Order: sequence, then C-alpha cells, then structure tokens
Amino acid sequence: MPTLRLALAQVDPTVGDLTGNARIVRDTTRRAADAGAQLVAFPEMMLTGYPVEDLVFRESFVRASRAALQTLAADLDTDGLGGLAVLVGYLDADGPSRMSAEADPARGPRNALALLSGGRVVTRYFKHHLPNYGVFDEDRYFVPGDALQVVRIGGVDVALTVCEDLWQAGGPFAAARVAGAGLVVNVNGSPYELNKDDVRAELCARRAVEAGATLAYVNMVGAQDELVFDGDSIVVGADGAPLARAAQFAEELMVLDLELPAATGTPPAEGAGMAIEHTVLSEQLPTPPAPRATYGIADRIADEEEVWAALVTGLRDYVVKQGFSSVVIALSGGIDSTVVAAIACDAIGAEHVHGVSMPSEYSSEHSQSDAADLAERTGLHYRVQPIAPMVDTFLANLELSGMAVENLQARVRGVILMALSNQEGHLVLTTGNKSELAVGYSTLYGDSVGGFNPLKDVPKTLVWQLARWRNADAKRRGRTEPIPANSISKPPSAELRPGQLDTDSLPEYDELDAILARYVDGDASRADLVAGGHDAAVVDRVIGMVDRAEYKRRQSAPGPKISPKAFGRDRRLPITNRFREA
Amino acid sequence: MPTLRLALAQVDPTVGDLTGNARIVRDTTRRAADAGAQLVAFPEMMLTGYPVEDLVFRESFVRASRAALQTLAADLDTDGLGGLAVLVGYLDADGPSRMSAEADPARGPRNALALLSGGRVVTRYFKHHLPNYGVFDEDRYFVPGDALQVVRIGGVDVALTVCEDLWQAGGPFAAARVAGAGLVVNVNGSPYELNKDDVRAELCARRAVEAGATLAYVNMVGAQDELVFDGDSIVVGADGAPLARAAQFAEELMVLDLELPAATGTPPAEGAGMAIEHTVLSEQLPTPPAPRATYGIADRIADEEEVWAALVTGLRDYVVKQGFSSVVIALSGGIDSTVVAAIACDAIGAEHVHGVSMPSEYSSEHSQSDAADLAERTGLHYRVQPIAPMVDTFLANLELSGMAVENLQARVRGVILMALSNQEGHLVLTTGNKSELAVGYSTLYGDSVGGFNPLKDVPKTLVWQLARWRNADAKRRGRTEPIPANSISKPPSAELRPGQLDTDSLPEYDELDAILARYVDGDASRADLVAGGHDAAVVDRVIGMVDRAEYKRRQSAPGPKISPKAFGRDRRLPITNRFREA
Repeated sequence: MPTLRLALAQVDPTVGDLTGNARIVRDTTRRAADAGAQLVAFPEMMLTGYPVEDLVFRESFVRASRAALQTLAADLDTDGLGGLAVLVGYLDADGPSRMSAEADPARGPRNALALLSGGRVVTRYFKHHLPNYGVFDEDRYFVPGDALQVVRIGGVDVALTVCEDLWQAGGPFAAARVAGAGLVVNVNGSPYELNKDDVRAELCARRAVEAGATLAYVNMVGAQDELVFDGDSIVVGADGAPLARAAQFAEELMVLDLELPAATGTPPAEGAGMAIEHTVLSEQLPTPPAPRATYGIADRIADEEEVWAALVTGLRDYVVKQGFSSVVIALSGGIDSTVVAAIACDAIGAEHVHGVSMPSEYSSEHSQSDAADLAERTGLHYRVQPIAPMVDTFLANLELSGMAVENLQARVRGVILMALSNQEGHLVLTTGNKSELAVGYSTLYGDSVGGFNPLKDVPKTLVWQLARWRNADAKRRGRTEPIPANSISKPPSAELRPGQLDTDSLPEYDELDAILARYVDGDASRADLVAGGHDAAVVDRVIGMVDRAEYKRRQSAPGPKISPKAFGRDRRLPITNRFREA
Repeated sequence: MPTLRLALAQVDPTVGDLTGNARIVRDTTRRAADAGAQLVAFPEMMLTGYPVEDLVFRESFVRASRAALQTLAADLDTDGLGGLAVLVGYLDADGPSRMSAEADPARGPRNALALLSGGRVVTRYFKHHLPNYGVFDEDRYFVPGDALQVVRIGGVDVALTVCEDLWQAGGPFAAARVAGAGLVVNVNGSPYELNKDDVRAELCARRAVEAGATLAYVNMVGAQDELVFDGDSIVVGADGAPLARAAQFAEELMVLDLELPAATGTPPAEGAGMAIEHTVLSEQLPTPPAPRATYGIADRIADEEEVWAALVTGLRDYVVKQGFSSVVIALSGGIDSTVVAAIACDAIGAEHVHGVSMPSEYSSEHSQSDAADLAERTGLHYRVQPIAPMVDTFLANLELSGMAVENLQARVRGVILMALSNQEGHLVLTTGNKSELAVGYSTLYGDSVGGFNPLKDVPKTLVWQLARWRNADAKRRGRTEPIPANSISKPPSAELRPGQLDTDSLPEYDELDAILARYVDGDASRADLVAGGHDAAVVDRVIGMVDRAEYKRRQSAPGPKISPKAFGRDRRLPITNRFREA
C-alpha cells in the first residue's frame, strides 16, 4: 500500500481578501512541505472566503477569483512548492450569473475546488450538492457540478468533494465508490452549531464506509459576520474508525501519513448518476521522510466551553475583520453586559475593552458596584457617566409618561455609547440575549444600539450557565474569576422604573426559554406547547410577543450563531404577519 | 365556440390573515356572481398572502391553510356560490418542511392553486417553475409540481399555472399547448418594479402564442413589507393581442366574456416533460346573461406617477397591516422629508400625518419656514421642537468634537421622534433616499431612526423628479401644489455644521446616481465605470463608500422596492467584505 502524507489546513480566510487568503495558502503550504506533506487540502472557497453571497453576481469578482487562482498556482511553484498537490477552494464560473428567470441553468457560477501542482491548475471540481436551507442559499448562487473528479496522486485515486456533498445521500460519495477511490477529500465551510460536531463525526464515519475509502474532512475556523466555523477537521478510515481529529476553534495544520490502497486501472466514465473524470498526477511518489507523521484525536470540549469559544471566536473575527481595535460596552452590573464584557476580554484583551456605567435615578446601588467589581476583576477600562442631566432635559422639553420615559433612559444611553464610538473609535457591543430578542423585551435604538451582539443567539438561562462555567474554569486554572457572584445571583431587572423586575413582564426565564426553544427553534404550534405542559395563557402571551417583535429583530445587530435557528439569515419571517396560532 | 364569463380579482390579501383573506374571496366571488361570472381567479397564495417566507416551515400554518381552503369551499357553497368555479392560491404540503439536507426532495410544501366548486376542492395544481433569484427564495420553500392540471369548464379546457410558470420557458405553457387548452389562467404575486409592466405584457403575449391559447393573468395589488404589487392584470388572445387590461395600483374586478374553443376529446397524459391531469367540471354551461361583459384596456400611467403610486401603496399597506393609524416625520424643509410627508398625506390623509421641525443652531432660516409652508399646503399636523437644550446637555457632560457632534444632533432628533412615537402611537417614518443609503451618508440611530422608509429605493435625482411631477399633477387638477418650490430648488444639506452641503462629502447627485445605478443595480466593475466616462478618483471614492456601508444598510428600516436591486431581500452582501475593485 502506498503511503501518502496528507496535510489538512484548518485556517481562517477572510471574505473578499483574495491576496490575504492566497498568502495564507502559500505560508501554510510551506509549513506543510517542511513537514514532508505531499497533498495539502484547504477549506471550501479558501481563496474568496465563505460565504460570499451576492458577490457571486459581480463578474469582476469572479474574474478576480479565477485570476488569483492562476497566480497562486504560479506563486506556489516559484516558492519551490510545485511538487506538492494543493487543493484550494475558489469561485469559478462559465457564464453569467443566475440572477434571473432567463439564466442558463447549465451555466453560471460554481463553488469550485482546484488541484494545483507544478505551477498549474491540474483539475477543477464543481460542488454537486448545493445546500439551500438554514443559512445556505446555494441554489441561488451556484450551478451544481455533475462530474466527480478523481486524481491519481502517488498511485492513489483521490476523489474531490465539497461540504454538502457529504451531507446529502447519493452523488459524489456513491460515485467515489464506483470509481474505486482510495481517499475522498471533503473541503468545508461548515458553520458551527451546538452539538453539530457529534453529528458531523457520525456522518463522516457513515460516508467513509459508503464510499469504501478513507475520508479526509477539513473545515475552516474563525468567523464571517454571523457564522462561526469551528474547525473540527477529521480523518476517518474506510471502516469508519476515526484516525485523527483536530481541535475545535483553533488554527491547526494536521499532517499525517495514510496507508492507502494502490489504484488499479482506470475508473469507469460514470457512476451513481455522475460523470467520473480521471486525471493522473503521479503514479508514484517518494516515501515520505521519517519519522512517520501522526496526529492524535483531540478531546471534545464541554458544551459551555464550546459555546464560549464560539462566542469569543465570533466576536474576535468580527472586530478584526471589520478593522476595529477596541469595543465599548454599557455595563449595568447585570448578567448580560457582564458576560459580554468577559467574552470581549477573552477575545481581544481587556486593554481593548471599554466599559461605561450609566446610572440613572432608578439604578440600584449594586448596578455600579458590580460593574466596578467586573472592571477590577478583568482589568477593562471603566468609567461612569450618569444620565440624569440628559434625561431631565428631554423631560423638561417634551411631555412624556410611562413607557416613553422608560425607553428614553435606554435611548440616552444609546446616544452616549454612539458618541463614544464616534469620538474614540470603538465598536459598540450590544448585549440583548436571545430570550429578550425573541419577545422584543428591549428598547429600539436604546439598549439595542450597537454593531455586534455576542449574545444574540444565547438564551438567558444559557447566559447564566456560561457565567458559572467561565468562573469555574478560571478557578480550576487558578485565575481570577471574571464575573462578580452578585451579577449571577441577583434577579434580572432593566432598572427603568422603581423596583422593576423582568418577571413583571415575562415568565420566569426557565419557562420562557423552554417555550422559546420549541416555538422559535422547533416551529412548534401553540397546541404542541400546551400539550407539552405549559399554561395556555403563558403560551399565548409569549408567542404573541414573539410574533410582534419581528420588526425589532430585523433591525438588530449581528451576532454569532450557535443554535439551529438564530435570528439571522437562517430564520426569515414577514414583518407583517397576521397568523395567530389557534 | 363556447362563451365563458371570466372574472379576475385584483385584490389585496394580508400575509397570515387566513380569515380576512377568505372573507375577501367570498365577498369578491359574490360580486363576480352578481355580474354573471362563471370562473373567478384570485392571485397566487390568496388565502395565506404572499410571500409567507419561513411560515412555510410551521406545520400548524400549513394545516391552517389547508383547513381554511376546505372551509372556504364549503362557505362559498353556503353563500349560494357553489355553481361558480373559483381559483384560489394557498399553501399545501404532503410532507415535512425542506429545511434540511435530509428532507425528501419529492415531498414538502407546495405553492398551490385550488379550483373550488360545488362546496369542494375539485383539483389542485402545484407551481412548477420556482423562482429563486432577486426577492424570491422558492427553492428554499417549495417542492415543484410536475403535473399540469387541465379542467374542463363549460366545455373549455382550462390550464392552471402560477406566476413563474409564465416567466421560464418550457413546462406548463408548453404542456398546455400539447393538452390543447383553450384558456391558460396564470395567478400571480408578482412584485412591482419600474418598467416591469411592459416586460410582463410582452411576455404574456409571447406565452399565449406559444400555448396557442387565451391567457388570463391576474396579479395581486397592495404591499407586503418591502414588496409592492401593482395589479396590472391582463387578458391576451391566442394571437398575442391584448383583450383587456386592469388599472395599476387599484383593486379591480375584471369581468369579461371570452369566446373560447370547445375542447375535443381528452388531452394526452403527458406533454413537454410534465404529466397532464384532466378533470371534467362541466361540459356545458348556460350562456352568460346579457349584456355581453367587456372590460377595456386601462391606460398605462407615466413613470413618475407609477413610482408615486407604488410608494403611496407601499406606505399605506405597511401602516394599515402593521396596525398603526398615524405617522410622525422629522421635517427639515429639505426635499426628502418633504416628499415623504407628501407621500404620507396621499397614503393615509394629512390628518394622520404629524410633522416635527427640530431646528438646531446650524439650521437655516428656511429649514423652518419651508417645513411650515409644507404643513400649510398639505394640512398635516405641525410642531416645532428645538434640539439645542438636549444637545447642549450632552456636550456639557461628554467630551465630543467633529463628527461625534454632528451625529449627536441627528441622534437627539431620533430620540425625540421615538419618544413621540411611544407617547402618541405614531409610526416613525425615516426619509433617507437610496443614494444616501448606498454611500452611508446618514447617522446610524439618528436620521435613520424609524419603522418605514418610503424613499429607501428612490435615488436622490428621482426624489426631485417625483416632487416636480407631484406639484405639476396637482396644478393640472387645480389642487394646491403640496411641495414648497424652495424645498425643490435649494442645494441639499444635512445642516449639522455651519454652511455644510452634501457636495462637501459627495459628488453632484447626477453623477453619484449614474455611478450607483451601474454599481449597485448593474453590478458593474470599477473598470466598467471608468470606461463609461466617470473620473477614476470619483469612482473609487463612491464604491469605497458603498462597500463600507453594508452594516448601516443591514440595520435600516424597510421601504417599498421599485428597482431591480433595492437594499432589501434582493441584494445580500457580506458585512465583512475585503474585496476592492481594481
């Protein structure tokens, strides 16, 4: 059996940064070559970043992607890396965009994967299964490929596949079995969701067995707008047993030797409804240099750690890729703003995090003391800016009462945050959790002000859970617990009127989150919820609030997706919707 | 030749309002029956409204839609209308949602059209061609139908089709020819775009000739969130000649007699790649009562009038369907807020429109006098609320300079508008035009505050054009010109610093709009724009501003779509995007 030394590059491209992404490929390929690798695989649409959305319709972008690929092939050769086979995802097209009824269904943009070697593009594979659900709109953007590419590398037939090709039955993996491939490479831009790593690992095992081949799955890491990529690259034997698995949420270069079956003869020209195209790059390669390259199986991390890492990664990449270097957060001493501040400190360092306490006449004593305690524990920059003078001036000039006065306080805070952002250049973080966002328990242009919301997809009960985990983790490591105990234990309040508590307006969060999980994530009906044991009046109140809050959600800041249905591209509801569950 | 009396119901359903929409069907069918109609056609997804987006994934909504259809069939019969054939669009499904990779591609939700008669559902057609571009995501939501339904009504074979079936070649229209249909009915939820009516009429003529059949095209009217439906229903003879055409932007019930070929024999079981299913409802119907029913060809309206009607319709339906009864607008005396106020007065009546002048120390004298003039001309409610006390208090408490001070003024105005909204119940209208939105020339949470933006898709040069048209139209009718001449003629300024003009930051609007039309709507490249005669430095400045403003646009209020690419569901770009046109 030939031995192939494979490198999987779990890296972090940036959408649109063709030059920077090509630089990552060159640098990483150099490292892989230094480790003796013969085949290096990068994630889906590595050169363009993923997802590029409507950039697909910009012909100049397609041209730039194709040109960057040619340049990269030549540059790798110039770098002395032409002897390696390098798999790089990019955007290709053989016709105009699909943006109309008249578009030719057989021509248009492609989610493409190129094999580069010897200074040239050896072969190109076009993604066959296009996902068009959840956050994905690939039927809108791409024409599916109908030919499996099989490349003989060092005498081993390697089949090329992209992401969704793994998730749907039939197609490329079935064709790879017909082709007798010894290795299937699957390159991914597969977004994180809580518990998705387990599903993915099982699926990899199943498809490897179906294809009768070793499977090498490489995923990107990092974040793009609301999507977080967790890496978790994996290699699975033809028997479905895991051979190697990378850490989650970290850049990794996995290099390992694989014993693979030598190809015999030429694959048939078609199989499983696809054409099979065969290219011979090399019938034999030198045995990789000693010592044998191995890579272990990284431990899975606990759920809270996983979510925390996703939120930190999502925030860090948003700040960095948007070109900010600092953030500002309104600190109320409550659990949401406290957890956001702790995430921000972990993501970009406390020296880049600015907290502002903005007490009003209704703010509790502990509002300021807990915020100050947080600042001391984490080392973030802290200041106090009372809002009374501004609020009083509005009240003296306008006739306001009730809810208008409550919202006014939140809006004055929003104006202050944005003024600090304009004056000092910080990105404003907003801190409304998923439960609040679901029921619209926030002030539009008030506490919802901000460019990014780390808790957008985190239900309130999970916010508390994360806070406890983060403190416990710090304690385990002998570090200062960042989150004041009082911020965790006190009853939540917006503090916009005397003695106000969240439970004046909302059910207890345990019950609220249980209802929301089923209604929002599960699309359950009112009848399902009542049958599930929830009080009918509570259910009606909650789902009524959710249905009326769509407009607010539409204007909310982006935030990292961690659930099956975040309030982002994965859930698209009309603002005007008169349907009421009966 | 049999004569069939056809009624096309150009009506305005509301998304999710199954009861209200069924009520429209019953009332309109009653009117059609009174006019002697034998076949009545309602728009696409009449019962549910359109588009319902992710409501498709709510099984309780699907069940409610199916149940409402059965109830409607029975109610029509109880109403004594069971003798008519009534075509009603609705949501159907024969399996769970498509929201995953594992979904059965042959089962799931359907964009369906039912023929109701005699108290029952006689037949159901499932839309074959699903649009998945622009504002449409139907591949995400629906399973395509593969059987053309042909129903014999009064001895005429009538083929049923839905919307996109008309726009794409092949499929139902080709199958209708094979089936020998005498009439093809096409029901629509086809959103308005400037000049789309011409394209649509030509397409109807072409498809009628291709099918060799009379074509009856019925479209909805009104608006749903950002989409405006212009009606423009049309009947075209088998030779492609228009027989009747409804007015744009008005509810209409077109009733007309059609001489149609008598069906002979049974259609073949398949054609043009589709199954053909034939149902006989009636071989003969009584001759419709005299006099003969005719319907003329409504005049097309001029471009400015068409856009104005779209903006009025979009605003009116948003206000009404969201349950508001009044709006509040910041009046600066400038052209944008003035035009928005005039649109609002036309949409919901001046007595429901509240204008607020919020002068600052940088406001010109004419800022207030022009706003007051507008109020007098239109009769809207007008008040003055100076912002100096609030601005001064912020400045006394925060260290701000430059842009932060400019934005502060806009944000204080935003807080005042939202306070008035909370206190008095008005919907806040925001007034940033498409040119400003494109380049990000606005203050986030300042002048962008609001629930709806009538000018979201209207370039600045078109705002002026509309103002001139509206005044000229008023003059023609002997009415007061609503828009002060000075608001049209003065140079645009944000008035956030002394002597500020838009041209300090932006090119002249003629040039800006010319660049934006090509870059935004046309996806032109920098090279295209420079080759088109624009100065390279200006192009670079403009497209750089556009690329950086995606985040602001993402948080902007909805507004009526009038162009091929509004800043809504039809244009989806990453916020983080490092691609720079070379």
